[in-house]
Formats: sequence, C-alpha cells, structure tokens
Amino acid sequence: MFTTTAFARRARERAIAAMIERGLKATPEVVFAELAAVVEEFGSNDDRHYDRLLKRLPAEATAGTNPDLLVTAGVIAYHETKWEELRLAPGAARLLADLNAAGVRLGVISAGLTRKQMEKILRLGMDRYVEPQLILITDQVGVAKSNPLLYRMAVELAGVPAERTMHVGDHPQKDADGAKRAGMQVAWHRGTGKYSQIQPELEPDHIIDSLEELRPIFIERYGLALPPR
Amino acid sequence: MFTTTAFARRARERAIAAMIERGLKATPEVVFAELAAVVEEFGSNDDRHYDRLLKRLPAEATAGTNPDLLVTAGVIAYHETKWEELRLAPGAARLLADLNAAGVRLGVISAGLTRKQMEKILRLGMDRYVEPQLILITDQVGVAKSNPLLYRMAVELAGVPAERTMHVGDHPQKDADGAKRAGMQVAWHRGTGKYSQIQPELEPDHIIDSLEELRPIFIERYGLALPPR
Repeated sequence: MFTTTAFARRARERAIAAMIERGLKATPEVVFAELAAVVEEFGSNDDRHYDRLLKRLPAEATAGTNPDLLVTAGVIAYHETKWEELRLAPGAARLLADLNAAGVRLGVISAGLTRKQMEKILRLGMDRYVEPQLILITDQVGVAKSNPLLYRMAVELAGVPAERTMHVGDHPQKDADGAKRAGMQVAWHRGTGKYSQIQPELEPDHIIDSLEELRPIFIERYGLALPPR
Repeated sequence: MFTTTAFARRARERAIAAMIERGLKATPEVVFAELAAVVEEFGSNDDRHYDRLLKRLPAEATAGTNPDLLVTAGVIAYHETKWEELRLAPGAARLLADLNAAGVRLGVISAGLTRKQMEKILRLGMDRYVEPQLILITDQVGVAKSNPLLYRMAVELAGVPAERTMHVGDHPQKDADGAKRAGMQVAWHRGTGKYSQIQPELEPDHIIDSLEELRPIFIERYGLALPPR
C-alpha cells in the first residue's frame, strides 16, 4: 500500500537538521552517512538509531551538547516528517473504498513491530476500510512472512475458501510465494522497488506495477461491480 | 513551568473516544474510571496503560476488535492531544526570554524518564532559553529529586557559587527543601497544585503562586535588568 523507502531519506535529513540546530557539530553529509550505516547494521526496527549515531561520531561533534536532547529532537523531527509524507499511493484509497462498497472484505498482512505497523495503518486511514480482525502483523501473531502459515491463518480468519481470497504484496518470495503456497490468488506488485528484480518461484496470478492496475482485473477477471475508475 | 494534570484528563478522554470509534464496546465513563485506576496502580511512567486497560475491561468490550489497533489508536490520540494542549503558563515564555536576554543562565531539573521530559522541553520550546548542559533529568543522571546531590550537581555544572543560583519548583520537599539543602536560593511555586497543602521543612526564600510573581522579585531583590512586565 505504501513504500517507506521513499520518505525515509527526507525524514532522516530533517532529523539531522534538528540535531545540528541544537548544537551537533558535524556536516549533514557525514551524519547522514553514519546514520545510514547504523540503520544498515542494526536494522530498521532497532529503536536506538540516534543514540548509536551520536556514540559513533567523534567526541567533538557532541561536545557542549546534551546528547539526550539531540536524540529526542532528532526522533521527533523524524516522526513528524514521516507522518507528513506517508500517504496512500494515488488511487489506492479510492480503490479500497470502492472494494469496501462492493462488499469485498479487506485485511492487512504486514511484517514488523505491532505498534509501528498499527500506527501506519491508522495514520494512513486504512482502518476505515479493513476489518480489524483481518489485520495480521507478524510480531503480533508470532509467525513470519516467510512462513505460509501466516497466509493460512489469514484465510482461516476470513472464513472463506483460500481460492476466494487474494493477497497483494511486493516481495516475490515472502508475499507472492507465501500466499500462493496457502492457496490464495496472488497479485505480485512488482513495481520498481527493491524486490522488483527477483522472481517469485511460483507463478503469481497477476503481476502489477501499480495498485490501480488491479481495478480492471477485479472487474474483468473477478466480476466485481467496481466503478471503472 | 507547566502542569501535566490539567491536560491529562482531556487527552485521556480523546484517547478513549478514539478506541470507542474503532469498536471498543463500553461507555466513556466506565473506560475512564478503569484507566484512572490503571494509572494510579502502575504510575504515570508505565508505558502499557492502554494494554492493561483493555485487559481489565470485560471480554465483551473488545470482542470483534483488534486490541493492538485500539491501543495504538488510543496512544496516538493521547499524545496528539497532549502536545496540542501542553503550553507554557501565560507569561512564562516571556519571562524566560527576558531572563535570557539579561544574561541569566537557565537550566531545567526534572523528575521522570529522559526522553519523555526532553520531549516536553522541546515541544514547549524551552530549549531556546536553557543551556543544554544545565538540563538534568533524574533518569538521565541517576539521582532522584529527593536527594540534594541532584541540586549540588546542577550548581557544579553551572560553575558558580550555590548562593548565586535559584531553583524554582512546586514540590515542598523534593524541590524547595532539596535545593535549599544544596545552598541554592529557593522559590517555592506553591500554586494550587497537588503539593500546595504541604509545607517545606526549610524556609524558602520566596513563595509564589504564579511564575509571573518572580519578575518583580528578580528586579527588586536581585537587581536584574528585566522589563517590568
């Protein structure tokens, strides 16, 4: 539904600017490179990126500052930018609303930390369209996306035969293959993201480059009564 | 500089409304009373108030919902209300700016969790007036407000004799007595808050009911060149 890579750069730049404003002595370029290294090394769900960043910069960079104040200023700026920039892809909200109106039940399967993913769903307003009990976050249910069980759980919660459900996702193996192994219809959202160059092992039912491409598929292949656009 | 009790009620009401909007089945009054009990039992720095709240409500209240979605919606609404409502007391920002302009060095001594208190300082814009190295949060320095060492540390960081420093605080023992024991000038902000009925053991140098009362004291008793109002 959305890609986080696109806005992460701008959010990090604003976080770094907030720290420099409050006394961090280093160029934005140096800080950005070090922060990228921290995220790479500790992963995107680590919750101490900015603490680690300041510890890795030369001592002169934080001399005379209050590092906890800098970290907090950075984290606030990062999140504010993130929520300003995080938006559903053009047409995606309309498609969700139209599916909802057509009586299609919607859910979310997402890898990550429960609160973090729930916050994205809420901030994007997706909770208006999806059934709360059909939201499965890997951290919440204790099953990873690489395990087809996650998709079987979703199907079971929906209470319909697997072939009457569809999973839309961008990861060729975790999304497309995982859902296919659970017997779901699969739309692989290839797009231009980081997974676009890897092929799924199993043939997806549909390959799309944008969510809007699903609309004619739903109408023509699945007979859904959606407005044409 | 600010009281959190005043806005906590409204923030909690908005949090409860957000959860009810997303399917929580209980009256706002019942939820509010249970939440108040959770905060009372687990303390204001506990970070799972809303999880605990939902666990304590009858099972029917959350049937058919996604409790993690409810908790996240509540937490988001709580924080948004908090930051909308948290403002420096009238005149306080002007007094800080005037003290700053007069060359008085300002700091903050605060009890609580480092990030939480730093976020308050930043959201209130107090970081524009205070020296970053004169911010002491009990969690950050590892010394509680009940220990006069906290105030001696502040004096030492300021690098001036204790009698040339002043602490302004509302707790009769932790603020007024603690700072007095460290040899500081003390202004006890008695106000009408929850500590207003307890007396300090040591005589404070000044007793004030609002921060604005400090302005004539600074001018007349300490000879500071501040604008009269």
